[in-house]
Amino acid sequence: MRLKNDWINGFVDGEGCFYVGINNNDLMALKVQVLPEFAVVKHKRDVKVLYDLKDFFKCGLVKKNRDNRMCYVVRKLKDLFNIIIPFFEKCPLMTTKKSNFLRFRWIVKSMMIKKYHLKAEGLEKIISVKNKMNRGTIL
Amino acid sequence: MRLKNDWINGFVDGEGCFYVGINNNDLMALKVQVLPEFAVVKHKRDVKVLYDLKDFFKCGLVKKNRDNRMCYVVRKLKDLFNIIIPFFEKCPLMTTKKSNFLRFRWIVKSMMIKKYHLKAEGLEKIISVKNKMNRGTIL
Repeated sequence: MRLKNDWINGFVDGEGCFYVGINNNDLMALKVQVLPEFAVVKHKRDVKVLYDLKDFFKCGLVKKNRDNRMCYVVRKLKDLFNIIIPFFEKCPLMTTKKSNFLRFRWIVKSMMIKKYHLKAEGLEKIISVKNKMNRGTIL
Repeated sequence: MRLKNDWINGFVDGEGCFYVGINNNDLMALKVQVLPEFAVVKHKRDVKVLYDLKDFFKCGLVKKNRDNRMCYVVRKLKDLFNIIIPFFEKCPLMTTKKSNFLRFRWIVKSMMIKKYHLKAEGLEKIISVKNKMNRGTIL
């Protein structure tokens, strides 16, 4: 079933997550990898709605999460930049999750797309902003 | 801010709950009280959106829940019957939460409004249906 923009908005205000992982990775010049992701987790009984999200955005994948949970996740930088971020710019979130989205957007659009995460100064800025995410603070 | 129908739908698909409490109450003829409620729980930082829901539906109240959580809750039978149930009939939910809603609707519309919950046979039927709710089963 084709989802509606406002339904997705409300659902993501409830269940969605904008997350930026900072992982050690010896293959990277700075030995650190920045991994932004947009994810929606639901019990496996509601996996259909996760596939509906995948169909809607035409990117990302549905995979197992822990326990009985499934996850719709978008990790490709170009998909986050071209599809996910423009959607939530056009249809702003209503809860404080919006502040996470704005930080997430800054990391992707203002830093990673310009490859600033590959430079020490840029990486430091990203880590500083990432540390303010998903803590319930409002901007 | 005036919420949109589809946003509420998505948000309730994520965060909403249709619940029927069955409590002992010596004041009732059958010593049991049936307490249906529609509730949306969020962290207190998002209390604004709960007041937006209250403004939208023009019924119910916002109150403290456990820990740092707040709750928008509608318990009055006439508000559930006249406002909440018609809204979700007009804008159907997308997740398996819909099956809870349909059971909830049956208990309110087909039983309680007709006062069948005050008769032993009706109460037994309600308890049987209530026991199938919020367990993730699909109809």
